[in-house]
Amino acid sequence: MTQHVVLAVDIGGTKLGAGLVDAEGHVHRHAEVPTPAAEPELGAALTGLIDAVVDSAAPFAAGVACAGPVDPARGTVSPVNIPGWRDFPLVDLVAGTVPGVPVTLVGDAVAAALGEHWLGAGRGARSLLGIVVSTGVGGGLVLDGAAYSGPSGNAGHIGHTVVDPAGPPCVCGARGCVEAYASGPSMVRWARERGWAGDDARALAESAASGEPTAVAAFDRGTEALARGIIATATLCDVDRVVIGGGVAAAGPVLLDPLRTHLERAATLGYVKRVTVAPSTLGRHGGLLGAARTALLAPRPGAPAYA
Amino acid sequence: MTQHVVLAVDIGGTKLGAGLVDAEGHVHRHAEVPTPAAEPELGAALTGLIDAVVDSAAPFAAGVACAGPVDPARGTVSPVNIPGWRDFPLVDLVAGTVPGVPVTLVGDAVAAALGEHWLGAGRGARSLLGIVVSTGVGGGLVLDGAAYSGPSGNAGHIGHTVVDPAGPPCVCGARGCVEAYASGPSMVRWARERGWAGDDARALAESAASGEPTAVAAFDRGTEALARGIIATATLCDVDRVVIGGGVAAAGPVLLDPLRTHLERAATLGYVKRVTVAPSTLGRHGGLLGAARTALLAPRPGAPAYA
Repeated sequence: MTQHVVLAVDIGGTKLGAGLVDAEGHVHRHAEVPTPAAEPELGAALTGLIDAVVDSAAPFAAGVACAGPVDPARGTVSPVNIPGWRDFPLVDLVAGTVPGVPVTLVGDAVAAALGEHWLGAGRGARSLLGIVVSTGVGGGLVLDGAAYSGPSGNAGHIGHTVVDPAGPPCVCGARGCVEAYASGPSMVRWARERGWAGDDARALAESAASGEPTAVAAFDRGTEALARGIIATATLCDVDRVVIGGGVAAAGPVLLDPLRTHLERAATLGYVKRVTVAPSTLGRHGGLLGAARTALLAPRPGAPAYA
Repeated sequence: MTQHVVLAVDIGGTKLGAGLVDAEGHVHRHAEVPTPAAEPELGAALTGLIDAVVDSAAPFAAGVACAGPVDPARGTVSPVNIPGWRDFPLVDLVAGTVPGVPVTLVGDAVAAALGEHWLGAGRGARSLLGIVVSTGVGGGLVLDGAAYSGPSGNAGHIGHTVVDPAGPPCVCGARGCVEAYASGPSMVRWARERGWAGDDARALAESAASGEPTAVAAFDRGTEALARGIIATATLCDVDRVVIGGGVAAAGPVLLDPLRTHLERAATLGYVKRVTVAPSTLGRHGGLLGAARTALLAPRPGAPAYA
């Protein structure tokens, strides 16, 4: 085992993952466990996982991607879908398992965007929006080639940009957020209210692929909102590429085709029209690779402060 | 004259300005001339101005702020309000007047944001949106302390974020852009359609300050749209401060008070609610100082590529 590896950790509401990753993005060891519901099982599962992956190896840095909200400056997390952690000192916990190794925290959507920019569908883009369409709609930004998390760690949160102030109510308290139209549950709810009889976003995508009109209309409505959110992001952040992943995006053309149509219809400015949309190629490994990239790019102790 | 000065140039549709600025932001020489309508007078006025300011001094770098759109990578400009320049090689022109000096180009809104961040109402902010409310609504971003222009040079263009897809038509071809509500001409047009008898945004601000209901309503409507654009920017870019300048913003509380009210009403996410709004303190000098800052921060020839 070379010493030139980093420890990458990816923490979601369903699974905890950890791996050793080298500077080329090769994953040398990898393990996953289900995410326990609460402490102390949660912390114990994570430290056990890290111990097993690190074993006798000596990573020179660690990167941790975690479901948000995260506070990279304080090193704490309060993931919406991990109720057992609120203002939880995740960086301290990880640092305790790999003494002397610097630990960097990043939100999972930013990590996914960074992973795609490094090794996936975002390669070659200068500025990139990564979107995860799933039970919610998350997003992360890579600007001028570097992850941009923002002072509070929440940059790129496209799911809560408002596309119609008269739109449906959103969990955040506003009306007409992208998430209130384009998340899996939002599209399923809308279709069921109009007589579609399925249960989840996967079934809705299958119905849409077979041409069932209500399911097709649900994706059309969701992707119109998503297109408006992408246009707002492109207008403000001047991204040149958008990479879309997540469970709902795995539906492929059922989502991407109407999305591209709505983008072409609604974009008016030249620099916004040039944005290309590509499906994720890393899938759920994007977060782990992005966490690794975060660690690889972090300033090293004792080294000059520039990368 | 110390050698430790940069040449700063600020180019707008009304005036051309140039100055020598040191690392503390002191302006050692400054001159302005009206902007001629067309070539060759335009280029001659600019090179004459630069020659007069530089004289025997030897700036080690030059920063040029110009009305947009600009293309910093190619060094060309096509300012909407300077019809005589389309894809004009501005960097080459300036470089010809100060041989051997590296020249950096930046959009005027980004320069204004950078100036405010350096020496004005944006000091201490980590991420900042600078807005110019005038005949249009422009914007520039400083993210993690550095100007962010984006791959095409258009980042921060808040005036063309859509706040209501059913809103009034905008010059860009979309409907419901911030600029279609909040620019001086948009507010004046709306008020005149409802019987207000004044001519321009300055008169509208005076009417609103005196409590005239239609003028008050015009500012209320304009600032509601501006608030929605700011909320979109804060949601996506996680800015912690907004600095507002430009002719219309010079109205002060008539604009700022309803703007803050609408921000408080419409913001729902914690990290968006924390954003503070401050009036510009540099006014029309922001662009020149931002141009200087751009030059001071640019990589120097022969020096390492990190700042």
